[in-house]
Amino acid sequence: MDSSFVVGIDVGGQTSKIGVVDARGTVLAQTVIRTDTYEQVEPYIAELAEAVKKLIKESGTEGKVRGVGVGAPNGNYYTGTIENAPNLLWGRQRVEFAKLLNKALNLPVALTNDANAAAVGEMTYGAARGMKNFIMITLGTGVGSGIVINGEVVYGHDGFAGELGHTTAVRNNGRVCGCGKTGCLETYCSATGVARTAREWLELSDEPSVLRSLDSIASKDVYEAAKDGDKLALKIFEFTGKILGRSFADFIAFSAPEAIVLFGGLARAKEFLLEPMENAMNENCLQMWKGKVKIVFSQLKESDAAILGASALAWEL
Amino acid sequence: MDSSFVVGIDVGGQTSKIGVVDARGTVLAQTVIRTDTYEQVEPYIAELAEAVKKLIKESGTEGKVRGVGVGAPNGNYYTGTIENAPNLLWGRQRVEFAKLLNKALNLPVALTNDANAAAVGEMTYGAARGMKNFIMITLGTGVGSGIVINGEVVYGHDGFAGELGHTTAVRNNGRVCGCGKTGCLETYCSATGVARTAREWLELSDEPSVLRSLDSIASKDVYEAAKDGDKLALKIFEFTGKILGRSFADFIAFSAPEAIVLFGGLARAKEFLLEPMENAMNENCLQMWKGKVKIVFSQLKESDAAILGASALAWEL
Repeated sequence: MDSSFVVGIDVGGQTSKIGVVDARGTVLAQTVIRTDTYEQVEPYIAELAEAVKKLIKESGTEGKVRGVGVGAPNGNYYTGTIENAPNLLWGRQRVEFAKLLNKALNLPVALTNDANAAAVGEMTYGAARGMKNFIMITLGTGVGSGIVINGEVVYGHDGFAGELGHTTAVRNNGRVCGCGKTGCLETYCSATGVARTAREWLELSDEPSVLRSLDSIASKDVYEAAKDGDKLALKIFEFTGKILGRSFADFIAFSAPEAIVLFGGLARAKEFLLEPMENAMNENCLQMWKGKVKIVFSQLKESDAAILGASALAWEL
Repeated sequence: MDSSFVVGIDVGGQTSKIGVVDARGTVLAQTVIRTDTYEQVEPYIAELAEAVKKLIKESGTEGKVRGVGVGAPNGNYYTGTIENAPNLLWGRQRVEFAKLLNKALNLPVALTNDANAAAVGEMTYGAARGMKNFIMITLGTGVGSGIVINGEVVYGHDGFAGELGHTTAVRNNGRVCGCGKTGCLETYCSATGVARTAREWLELSDEPSVLRSLDSIASKDVYEAAKDGDKLALKIFEFTGKILGRSFADFIAFSAPEAIVLFGGLARAKEFLLEPMENAMNENCLQMWKGKVKIVFSQLKESDAAILGASALAWEL
């Protein structure tokens, strides 16, 4: 068979990453274009298509590309549309993304959101290879999720299933979330959530911490401080891990997965998060699941992961 | 085709109900045997098989039965076993239920837990006909659930998925649950949970209520009191509905269902539960789902529902 390559596109708010990928998950060639310079979708798609064609040519895979997989905020697998994506200037209205790109490239296009793409990527090339039931949690600026049941991503009735970042982690006096709700998991356990915990705790106590000397705090600063043994920073990760683990216990009651797979910037703090996460998960789940559900970390190289995830969608086309 | 009937068996702690069912969901004949007089599984299976054979004969469906579906506490679809079922004298150890019954009847047997059976029943004959994505919640002595995604019941990695009654509804100072956890949905929103709320509230306040005159309170008493306009009883259902609705919002974030389908004794209090449930659900879910997910009530006759649910499993054999 000739069609032994796929193209993966990761549409982010600032840039869009494009890669040509083989069946083993090797990124043969990659490139990047800006996303944020376009207010309309048509010129953006035109440049994206040009970049894809050029990359296919350069990588010597002309005529051998089976299809294109796209991971994008609010991407809907069923309809191929992006809508209400606040971080995409051209994606705030409903945009027929898959259709437009298919027309421009004359290749089949599959679209889903970034976390679902990450789940497919992990199942195809990464830590979830061989797993039929797992939950992917992406710990980035927000908390995303992709749920796999019987080897298939769960899209639900409308294509938007798997918004576990917006399940309620804290019921009373929970933090206000960008989505309009309060207490969402994302407000505690994303990179921004961790920074928010740091700012809150610094204000509420007099506990000494190297974080006090910083003008503004990002989750990376909390991580660096924890690595240096800063007690407050360590407690912040313990708190974050505990909230994650408690929520995982509820997710397990839903789909009884083999594993929870973690990915994203914050997942790098594995050394500080893993133990409190596992403890809270096992304390809060039913007896039959205690100690049975694995927490594993993505095995994909972070620079390639978004492209790989998106590309993996295209194998199913 | 000759095989146009199925047998449904609902294994309860006290009795086991057996029915012969046609493709339209008509129960042609039914009977019942005791469950609680057997300490060993073998004599129970022997009597069960006898009763099934007799019923098939009486209903004139000999040679036309496609298979047998069984709904039982802790029934595992994958393995056909029942294990750790506290309410079954013979089911506290691991029991090869499907295998034993298959041997005794020489018919294919499918087994799952009661809530999953209810979900399949509702999808085959009831309120969820035509739905591919819904969540069945059974409000009985406990809170059970059966989750349907893409037209299939979710069994998960180990066959035990869908324990939504044991997700955490109240995080701090939650009620102690029989499962060993605290704050489980079941401790608030089952029939026993409603009675518990009544007892708690009567003790905590001096509010007048007809419930004060009762020696012991069951959820049925609270329902009767609410029908008579008792304010405390009405508030109890409002509270129960609110907790259910808040949890439903989290379930929606998981699988984006078309509907939540309610079944069981407590679901009869629809008139008092529906509004607070819908309000809490819509207040606590993401914008895109507000007002979109239906809450519907089982359409199966309660006396037939358990048999129908179990029988529906057998069509897939």
